[in-house]
Amino acid sequence: MNIDFTYQNPTTIYFGKNAIDNLSSELNNYGDTIMLAYGKGAIKKIGLYDQVISILEKNGKNIVELSGIMANPTYEKVMEGAKLVRENNVDLILAIGGGSVIDCAKAISVSAYCEGDAWTRYWIQYEPVDNKIVPVASILTLAGTGSEMNGGSVITNEEVKLKNGRVFPANVNPVFSILNPEYTFSLPTYQMVSGIFDMMSHLMEAYFSGEDDVTSDYLIEGLLRSIIHSAKIAVGNPTDYEARSNLMWSSTLAMNPIMGLSKTQDWEVHMIEHQLGAYTDCAHGMGLAAVSLPYYRFIYKYGLDKFVRFATQVWNVDTTGKSKDEVALEGIDAMEQFIKECGIVTNIKELGATEEMLPLIANSTVILGGYKVLTADEILAILKVAYTA
Amino acid sequence: MNIDFTYQNPTTIYFGKNAIDNLSSELNNYGDTIMLAYGKGAIKKIGLYDQVISILEKNGKNIVELSGIMANPTYEKVMEGAKLVRENNVDLILAIGGGSVIDCAKAISVSAYCEGDAWTRYWIQYEPVDNKIVPVASILTLAGTGSEMNGGSVITNEEVKLKNGRVFPANVNPVFSILNPEYTFSLPTYQMVSGIFDMMSHLMEAYFSGEDDVTSDYLIEGLLRSIIHSAKIAVGNPTDYEARSNLMWSSTLAMNPIMGLSKTQDWEVHMIEHQLGAYTDCAHGMGLAAVSLPYYRFIYKYGLDKFVRFATQVWNVDTTGKSKDEVALEGIDAMEQFIKECGIVTNIKELGATEEMLPLIANSTVILGGYKVLTADEILAILKVAYTA
Repeated sequence: MNIDFTYQNPTTIYFGKNAIDNLSSELNNYGDTIMLAYGKGAIKKIGLYDQVISILEKNGKNIVELSGIMANPTYEKVMEGAKLVRENNVDLILAIGGGSVIDCAKAISVSAYCEGDAWTRYWIQYEPVDNKIVPVASILTLAGTGSEMNGGSVITNEEVKLKNGRVFPANVNPVFSILNPEYTFSLPTYQMVSGIFDMMSHLMEAYFSGEDDVTSDYLIEGLLRSIIHSAKIAVGNPTDYEARSNLMWSSTLAMNPIMGLSKTQDWEVHMIEHQLGAYTDCAHGMGLAAVSLPYYRFIYKYGLDKFVRFATQVWNVDTTGKSKDEVALEGIDAMEQFIKECGIVTNIKELGATEEMLPLIANSTVILGGYKVLTADEILAILKVAYTA
Repeated sequence: MNIDFTYQNPTTIYFGKNAIDNLSSELNNYGDTIMLAYGKGAIKKIGLYDQVISILEKNGKNIVELSGIMANPTYEKVMEGAKLVRENNVDLILAIGGGSVIDCAKAISVSAYCEGDAWTRYWIQYEPVDNKIVPVASILTLAGTGSEMNGGSVITNEEVKLKNGRVFPANVNPVFSILNPEYTFSLPTYQMVSGIFDMMSHLMEAYFSGEDDVTSDYLIEGLLRSIIHSAKIAVGNPTDYEARSNLMWSSTLAMNPIMGLSKTQDWEVHMIEHQLGAYTDCAHGMGLAAVSLPYYRFIYKYGLDKFVRFATQVWNVDTTGKSKDEVALEGIDAMEQFIKECGIVTNIKELGATEEMLPLIANSTVILGGYKVLTADEILAILKVAYTA
């Protein structure tokens, strides 16, 4: 672990079937005005909305509502929430939903009292937050992004067609998060498997980079194995509590700084997907899977030993009588087979991309890179493979 | 993950060669009087004592010293520190050393303002702490216990020959911990390998219990693999920074609630070792290793599938043509071979035990149990195997 690091994570996690029982006592720590932030009403169907409203009312809270937060939350929506926060003097933003809702809540938290344009300052110039931050808490209903226990916030600016993300310092993390795996039972399979690939991608972005020999690599392998194991069960039986709970907790860990400490990390797959998402509004995990396969087949030779390790430690590929290249590619093949078994879409045409979009996506993608720093032309070539997959 | 849990860990970790650079800015968050708590002077030999004194003086702090904290810190020492804290109105206890020093600092923290006898209230009756807690911070010089990022505090009461431990809630955790792997370079090999088995034992205590299918089990397997890998390098070359840094961070994680969430856990090996330690004052990790081998060989059949998984996932045991019992026992054999390669002592006679002590240890051991709840006679039988190993 040659790269020095600071690790801090103050989020309190309440996990399990009775996790909501902790909401009342947590509410005592904050002021009277709570903003409920949520999506398009799924939380009403599962009864969670009524339950939370009832708890807030019993605790004598004033409730402000921000509903209709979309899958790729827009900066326009952030500004709508920020205005509500200022007008009502909101003391706590309670986000109920998946990563999009929580990301949006964090964006509102840092933007409400920002002087100047928050988009430019916080998502383009990555300035430190120097204004008042409104505490965010979350009740998670969709596993995938890990936003419930990190400072990440990905926002789409539709005006300029940019989907930018950043990880804010830990004081922007949710102060507490309530994780009940049963809340994810009614989620459509499409979204469940999209979330599954999202968590796997978070781990691979950290894994395929830099030194190969740090403790974080071993943790990532373990967590990937756990996700693969539980995903197969959950795809067959979405109400298997054990599998869904493993996936929910794996998701929280997968996009948590603790899993990738002292790694340089890659994140090019996410950069390409962000632009794919900005143009197509596709499900994040589907976009990641579609990009990952051609991306890893393109870069594996630059990190050959790590891809061999990935094949053997994560996918149990037998190495007998095979070259390193064969083993590495078999590992990626095994991942492709798993992706297909889960019903994850890997063709970006199916995700809404058109041929005309491909150069626009390639040219607007941020270049980061792990084992290999790509050119825009190479990104275009990868997108073309994903388009004809 | 069928067992609901709450997870919270507010400790900030500064990790790496330059981690000490963060001490000054952290000191700003606390009052003027700092108690330095340390052991028998090893920190003076490596220059760390002078460096810390100089930083404290530059920050205008009043320094109170508590030195001579021993390997198994005594309640008497805790009382000495508690008196110093009260007399000097200490604002922060800065523990410099390994787990014993940090455990002792936490014990002083909760005991200084305790009404009544702290030993009885907090280590016998496990009462919640209802008095003022003095913040503790740490600078780690020995990897093994994980005390730098948890609420654990193991104290020996020599008067009644009891070594009792408990995990206090997260508000007793160190507020920050400074981890520079280079501080561990000058440690005698005996203590280094003792710490290595200590961290492995923490993971196995969580692993060999309850349901076999939770995310925590996969994380534990990954972390055990990392420890085994780095231990082999560190035993050959104690100043290999990469290996020592992996071991240091693995140690912090190994005894951290995050690794065993939703597991019932065992901890019988620790219970037996605590009494072995109370009678012999042996190095904790050595005692754990000596007890573990006969203990696991005795209980493996009650958790057979998990021991098979341990053998294959952690020790790469080939299963071809073997019965489950054979695979499970080969896994324990592989661990024994690793223990011997590291130079870890597995005979409790060598650790200071006498034949007369064995029934006293067995009869005073707390019975917990994972796959099998032992009787005092069974513990005695295990101790006898460890005595003639």
